[in-house]
Amino acid sequence: MQEFSVATRSRTEFVDITAEVQDAVAAMGCKEGTVTVFIPHTTAGITINENADPDVTADMESALEKMVPWRAGYRHSEGNSAAHVKASLMGSSVQVLVNEGRLMLGTWQAVYLSEFDGPRSREVWVG
Amino acid sequence: MQEFSVATRSRTEFVDITAEVQDAVAAMGCKEGTVTVFIPHTTAGITINENADPDVTADMESALEKMVPWRAGYRHSEGNSAAHVKASLMGSSVQVLVNEGRLMLGTWQAVYLSEFDGPRSREVWVG
Amino acid sequence: MQEFSVATRSRTEFVDITAEVQDAVAAMGCKEGTVTVFIPHTTAGITINENADPDVTADMESALEKMVPWRAGYRHSEGNSAAHVKASLMGSSVQVLVNEGRLMLGTWQAVYLSEFDGPRSREVWVG
Repeated sequence: MQEFSVATRSRTEFVDITAEVQDAVAAMGCKEGTVTVFIPHTTAGITINENADPDVTADMESALEKMVPWRAGYRHSEGNSAAHVKASLMGSSVQVLVNEGRLMLGTWQAVYLSEFDGPRSREVWVG
Repeated sequence: MQEFSVATRSRTEFVDITAEVQDAVAAMGCKEGTVTVFIPHTTAGITINENADPDVTADMESALEKMVPWRAGYRHSEGNSAAHVKASLMGSSVQVLVNEGRLMLGTWQAVYLSEFDGPRSREVWVG
Repeated sequence: MQEFSVATRSRTEFVDITAEVQDAVAAMGCKEGTVTVFIPHTTAGITINENADPDVTADMESALEKMVPWRAGYRHSEGNSAAHVKASLMGSSVQVLVNEGRLMLGTWQAVYLSEFDGPRSREVWVG
């Protein structure tokens, strides 16, 4: 298992962590198989989406905000329930196949940490 | 592979199954690796979220209900289409790393069965 | 690792790929374990849901369209941001347990490719 930290910079942010995950796979010595990229937090998620146009993740952030508004009469006293919901919508992990030591991703795919209650320091586990 | 049953008590309910999953991992003799927690149903899901304040899962239930209302002119004659949609939003499984026989979860994380068409008896598979 | 192609026929479509995944598992010679069904695209996803009544997936398509409308003032110039959001909501992969060479699915479960920006030819990887 390998881990690394990500410093997020705003409440909502999609951070491309593909290079860090690839480094973790190399450090694990994993040549073939499937790796799990897992986030041990409950107000951020992991997802795979487009790596090219940053407008895509900006649109994803705003679409999620429309679906799950930050303020909507939630009960949880910390006030960050929207972040918990979005975290489960994105999911706590992605699985990626590995071939000859390389993450197998489509041409336009990147692995993202999706922050919904930042800025914070987040951990990511790869195993 | 191990399995266990969960009796849900209402139409919508998040049931913390972390202890049952940990027991399954022990029964499998799994010491290191990754386990899949899978639900063989289509109107309930599996997700990871906060284990401390029950208001969080209550807020998740109500946020999902706003996103996918129970009644919204669906075609499916059983009348539980909202539950099918929510099941896919949460997902049919989570993956959790295992170290020295213990589930590796963040401090605030629990594994939840998310019931959307209960009350029912549900099966969970761990492998 | 095995792969196969799926030709989708409309912008939004849930295509049952369970038989193709089962064939891939057989071709891999996988008898026991867990397989990952992964889509290397960012405007389509993979999910598990009901295999019986086609109204269920029709309802899922329309519920997702209400949650993430095709037109909603997105920034991404390709105009398909809704498809990117829906892809992350469904997820890029599912994990399925395998026993004696057979996918372990519930009675009513099928594995679906969820197309959100078709029609296109899509690849699916199983590993």
